[in-house]
Amino acid sequence: MKALVVGGAGFIGSHLCDALLQENHEVVCVDNFSLGTTANISHLTPNERFALYEADASVYEELDEVFVKEKPDYVFHLAANSDIQASASKPEVEYKNTYTTTFQILSCMRNHSVKKIFFASTSAVYGDKKDTVLDENTPNLSPISYYGAAKLGSEALLNAFSYMNNMEVLVFRFPNVIGPRLTHGVIFDFIGKLRADAMHLQILGNGKQTKPYIYVSDLIDAIMQFKNTGMTGITLYNVSAEGATSVTAIADIICDEMKLENVDYEYTGGEGGWKGDVPRFKYCADKIHAAGWKAKYTSDEAVRQTVIDNINRE
Amino acid sequence: MKALVVGGAGFIGSHLCDALLQENHEVVCVDNFSLGTTANISHLTPNERFALYEADASVYEELDEVFVKEKPDYVFHLAANSDIQASASKPEVEYKNTYTTTFQILSCMRNHSVKKIFFASTSAVYGDKKDTVLDENTPNLSPISYYGAAKLGSEALLNAFSYMNNMEVLVFRFPNVIGPRLTHGVIFDFIGKLRADAMHLQILGNGKQTKPYIYVSDLIDAIMQFKNTGMTGITLYNVSAEGATSVTAIADIICDEMKLENVDYEYTGGEGGWKGDVPRFKYCADKIHAAGWKAKYTSDEAVRQTVIDNINRE
Repeated sequence: MKALVVGGAGFIGSHLCDALLQENHEVVCVDNFSLGTTANISHLTPNERFALYEADASVYEELDEVFVKEKPDYVFHLAANSDIQASASKPEVEYKNTYTTTFQILSCMRNHSVKKIFFASTSAVYGDKKDTVLDENTPNLSPISYYGAAKLGSEALLNAFSYMNNMEVLVFRFPNVIGPRLTHGVIFDFIGKLRADAMHLQILGNGKQTKPYIYVSDLIDAIMQFKNTGMTGITLYNVSAEGATSVTAIADIICDEMKLENVDYEYTGGEGGWKGDVPRFKYCADKIHAAGWKAKYTSDEAVRQTVIDNINRE
Repeated sequence: MKALVVGGAGFIGSHLCDALLQENHEVVCVDNFSLGTTANISHLTPNERFALYEADASVYEELDEVFVKEKPDYVFHLAANSDIQASASKPEVEYKNTYTTTFQILSCMRNHSVKKIFFASTSAVYGDKKDTVLDENTPNLSPISYYGAAKLGSEALLNAFSYMNNMEVLVFRFPNVIGPRLTHGVIFDFIGKLRADAMHLQILGNGKQTKPYIYVSDLIDAIMQFKNTGMTGITLYNVSAEGATSVTAIADIICDEMKLENVDYEYTGGEGGWKGDVPRFKYCADKIHAAGWKAKYTSDEAVRQTVIDNINRE
């Protein structure tokens, strides 16, 4: 097939381009390079089955041009603002990069009769449900971040567009994704801080924020396995690794891998790292397990592997 | 207080302006007059406590100007595309008039520290759940119309903005609203058709589409009663009349009031009137009943009263 990967030069998108090419699909990569980088895909540009467009998916005309030229069979939508902490002070970033991209992609699909789409959603759509175990049937989704709101709004669009136009939609809601090519987030920050000062580490919150981390290759495997749902409408899965890792445990793993001892952790205090962050949640991936997928890395293993990737990169 | 009613020249909005003025509030009405009309509010323009702005709430700068000048305490957001059937072929209308208006209103509120908002949501956020009784805790909301998707996306925005900015939000999800100043919909259509031809009436679908209809004064009473929630975050209610009315029953009531006999009903067939329409649903308003509100008119009575209003208007 010919796959259009929107956000294909980003962290997750570029790994997906790799996997699709490995399965011998043609890949058309669209990115506006706001967060994506040429470094993530430079190894793919010599490939004849790979095409690259610099375009802004929130602008209908720019995207339409790619649809006209390339006539894709399947759209993988990974374009979004992925720096959630940054958008807490700029909700308009989520309006444009996370919600409007979805609307314009679906409009192009509708106008060009493209029927298949994968959408990267998030655990952030649930909001802060405290001790509730979050599964696909949890009611009253109430995102507390602008990012989560734009993703939930996008899911609503996918519902309506798929019903009105007989589209086949796969939606994965996943928590933090980590691994090679990661560009921000707590692991990235801590390594940078400890390189600057190997004695002290400032940790936002009380360090007890605890979340599941999934290794990027596990997520990509799941996308590849489930990409053809064979059904119109939305097929939805929570996708996650086993277990969860606290912020303090992340610091411990990093210090261990960097061979640092007796680092002084200085907590800023409070439950959450920053406003809009869900400090801890219990995530249920039973549905996708029952469908025959399981992550190879646990959350702790994913964190350790990412630290190793990152240290060895430089 | 000073109330900003966005969509204040529309069907529901203009009735809300009436009620707010009757309670001695100051009212600032904003409308782009795409569906609203000057006729709906011309009786209010002499009132010193009433101000009118022609502005498009989907454009930040136009709305911001009103916030700067008027400094409202409370925003009633009733701006939306209300002609759902029309937007089935133009999803961009919902993107602009239903979703983007919400985003810009919330952005203005955030930037001007306005803390209270009422939002007009809809039973369409639930999607087509067949025989499920729809209440505020129904999971898996899956709108099938672009309108329902834009409203559900708006609710997601209200969640995030209220959490991030300590806003007090009242959301009502209501089904079809009818009464004086109604400009479209099945009742309006049937009366027009029967005036043109008193012998035959074409009815979309099989006539068994059955929904609750709420009389506009009942809805306005509920807004006025619950407008101060006293809590940050979203307070959400399903709001509906008792009972439900089939399309054939509506035709019968209209023929009865127009004194027409032996009209030949010609059904186009099929379950729904048009794609994106939810043909029937069971709506639970127990929560708002328990909180002390009940509609004065049943669904059938609301239909009959609307027919009488409409026939007498001309």
